[in-house]
Amino acid sequence: MKRFELIQKLKQISDEKIVMLVLDGLGGLPKNGKTELEAAETPNIDSIAKNSDTGLMTPIIPGITPGSGPGHLALFGYDPLEYIIGRGILSALGVKFPIRDGDLAARVNFATIDKNGMVTDRRAGRIPDDINRKMCEMIRQLKIPGVEFFIETEKDHRAALIFRGSKLSENISETDPQKTGVAPLPVKPMDSSKASIATAGLINKFLQQVRKKLQDEHPANMILLRGFALFTEIPSFQEVYGLNACAIAGYPMYRGLASLVGMKVIEVDSGVIPQFNKLKELWGKYNFYFIHIKYTDSYGEDGNFDKKAAVITEVDRNIDKILDLEPDVFVITADHSTPATYKAHSWHPVPVLLKSKWSRKSCINKFGETQLLKGTLGIINTPDLMTLIMANSGRLAKFGA
Amino acid sequence: MKRFELIQKLKQISDEKIVMLVLDGLGGLPKNGKTELEAAETPNIDSIAKNSDTGLMTPIIPGITPGSGPGHLALFGYDPLEYIIGRGILSALGVKFPIRDGDLAARVNFATIDKNGMVTDRRAGRIPDDINRKMCEMIRQLKIPGVEFFIETEKDHRAALIFRGSKLSENISETDPQKTGVAPLPVKPMDSSKASIATAGLINKFLQQVRKKLQDEHPANMILLRGFALFTEIPSFQEVYGLNACAIAGYPMYRGLASLVGMKVIEVDSGVIPQFNKLKELWGKYNFYFIHIKYTDSYGEDGNFDKKAAVITEVDRNIDKILDLEPDVFVITADHSTPATYKAHSWHPVPVLLKSKWSRKSCINKFGETQLLKGTLGIINTPDLMTLIMANSGRLAKFGA
Repeated sequence: MKRFELIQKLKQISDEKIVMLVLDGLGGLPKNGKTELEAAETPNIDSIAKNSDTGLMTPIIPGITPGSGPGHLALFGYDPLEYIIGRGILSALGVKFPIRDGDLAARVNFATIDKNGMVTDRRAGRIPDDINRKMCEMIRQLKIPGVEFFIETEKDHRAALIFRGSKLSENISETDPQKTGVAPLPVKPMDSSKASIATAGLINKFLQQVRKKLQDEHPANMILLRGFALFTEIPSFQEVYGLNACAIAGYPMYRGLASLVGMKVIEVDSGVIPQFNKLKELWGKYNFYFIHIKYTDSYGEDGNFDKKAAVITEVDRNIDKILDLEPDVFVITADHSTPATYKAHSWHPVPVLLKSKWSRKSCINKFGETQLLKGTLGIINTPDLMTLIMANSGRLAKFGA
Repeated sequence: MKRFELIQKLKQISDEKIVMLVLDGLGGLPKNGKTELEAAETPNIDSIAKNSDTGLMTPIIPGITPGSGPGHLALFGYDPLEYIIGRGILSALGVKFPIRDGDLAARVNFATIDKNGMVTDRRAGRIPDDINRKMCEMIRQLKIPGVEFFIETEKDHRAALIFRGSKLSENISETDPQKTGVAPLPVKPMDSSKASIATAGLINKFLQQVRKKLQDEHPANMILLRGFALFTEIPSFQEVYGLNACAIAGYPMYRGLASLVGMKVIEVDSGVIPQFNKLKELWGKYNFYFIHIKYTDSYGEDGNFDKKAAVITEVDRNIDKILDLEPDVFVITADHSTPATYKAHSWHPVPVLLKSKWSRKSCINKFGETQLLKGTLGIINTPDLMTLIMANSGRLAKFGA
């Protein structure tokens, strides 16, 4: 029996409230003997940790570094090796495009080509958003027989492109040559199926039209396509867990990921205080609150150890805003590690804390990677967190007699 | 390669003796800082633990609370999400019914209905066993074309019912309305297969006959059926491990589970001393001894923290009765946690201790949930215990060259 079947079979109705606080990229590596989390001042979280289940989680499998998509799907309890969300889909979700089963999405870069069709700038000088919007509007005037398409501005030179038609294939090659001085690549079918051949042909015709339409523009006179991905609907949070969930997240990608699993996406400014305040404002309307704090990851990617630690300290100083609401289950964790010394997402297990009235007692005095090895949960797989949350909130009946 | 294939490939013959002592529901939650096991006086077990492999085990997956069936199958090394034993089958095994592949079993409640057929008591006033036996005898006089059936008294108002015929289906609905003042529900097929439709029809005809047969009886004048389950034979302990196993268990369900995997079920009174004495009496006749102590779980379910701890203390005081026999592998563990504060089975990992001459040394001074986090085994999955037992008793060859 698979995980979701098991949950379907056992799930119970409850009004217990759950808060999942995700500090993006929280996990770190030591610098002068301490990780970012260990260097941060976290007296409040440390005190919670002593009476909570704690441990570490492996997002995918040991050694595999997750992107934001699989990292969050795992946090939401979806097997990240089964539910694969392509980059194009994440772009489409990020611009709130109402994507449907069978749609084919791709990431667009506006680019500059010379009169011989050679790419001179893969990002068209990072055009401002209003130029991007103008270019999208021009492209929308095109027509391709047999397929609908949609193009939506993301930011700077980036846009999302969605094709809607019957039997589209994602198994086609990208057009971004990844360097300048050469022409954009033609789309090629990556297998011999009719769908892949037809889809490649169709997109090549579309790209010819785009080139003609934009020929007198500058610097954005061509588009490059990457990350072709078909959208397949996935079971919603409500269907899987019976939870009425909302997402308090400021950044488009995480809002998109939350909407993908059917969470209600809340308008909020990014930042620890506005996001925690929003939780209080919404308290009682939902029974699952996903709060996504972005800056731990951003500073990790920048290699800024101190600022990453400072964001964690800020979370600690404000954690009472959450605790005062008395959630029945409170989780602090991460989608992946982003060690400041590594300056990128990494594969290292991530810290986790789960507080409920059914927690065992962790004998640790600091919520940090080193001590968490002695935590009550050990090292679990990230998708197991949701079954633990369900159990701790009285939402899972016994399996078998 | 699956676990059982791997074991088949590697298993060796040995005469080393194994004792698996299962303290049902042993795992707990802290009350005043200590769990039941930590509050118990266990100087003898603590001293064994120092020279043993120790750790914790997750019975199913994190967050999933096992019933006794999946909990024990996992202890016996069977994947509890693959080998699913329905409630009806457990009832049939509990009354020692010689169940066969393809039999359909259900749990029976004798109930009281009024002259309009409405249920007035779902348990027929918890009739004594002798009335139950009389009712079963009356029902046995019925005949249904195309199918054999067997009904056996369990206890009070409960009985086990087994249908034997070709192509029976378990995918049919239960008849217990779960409340009074309404009629028993008809059995409905839960899918559109011929087998489900035919089975539902057949059982409805049987129930009409039962109603007619018992119409002048009181209070047990009807039966309610729950937990329909088809029996599929599972590989025996002998086949899987080559072990000649016996079960020293006092309670029907655990005796039934042991017989399901082909263990020889020994007659014994329930209780630490009689069960440990029985082990000594049998010593040498088998090479695997499963001893099941029930009361840790019962007191956990009752919320009686102190009495649960007292049972553990009693086990400790008598543990020499086992050690004096010098088993080659000695295991103390549990099928699941039943924290007295939770008053029910729970999902928390269970303590485990494995003593053999090949154990590593655990740096713990108390056999309890908190210290076991530092044990040599870490947190393993319960089905892994049997491969460890096999290895420690010299029964598994090297895998690959």
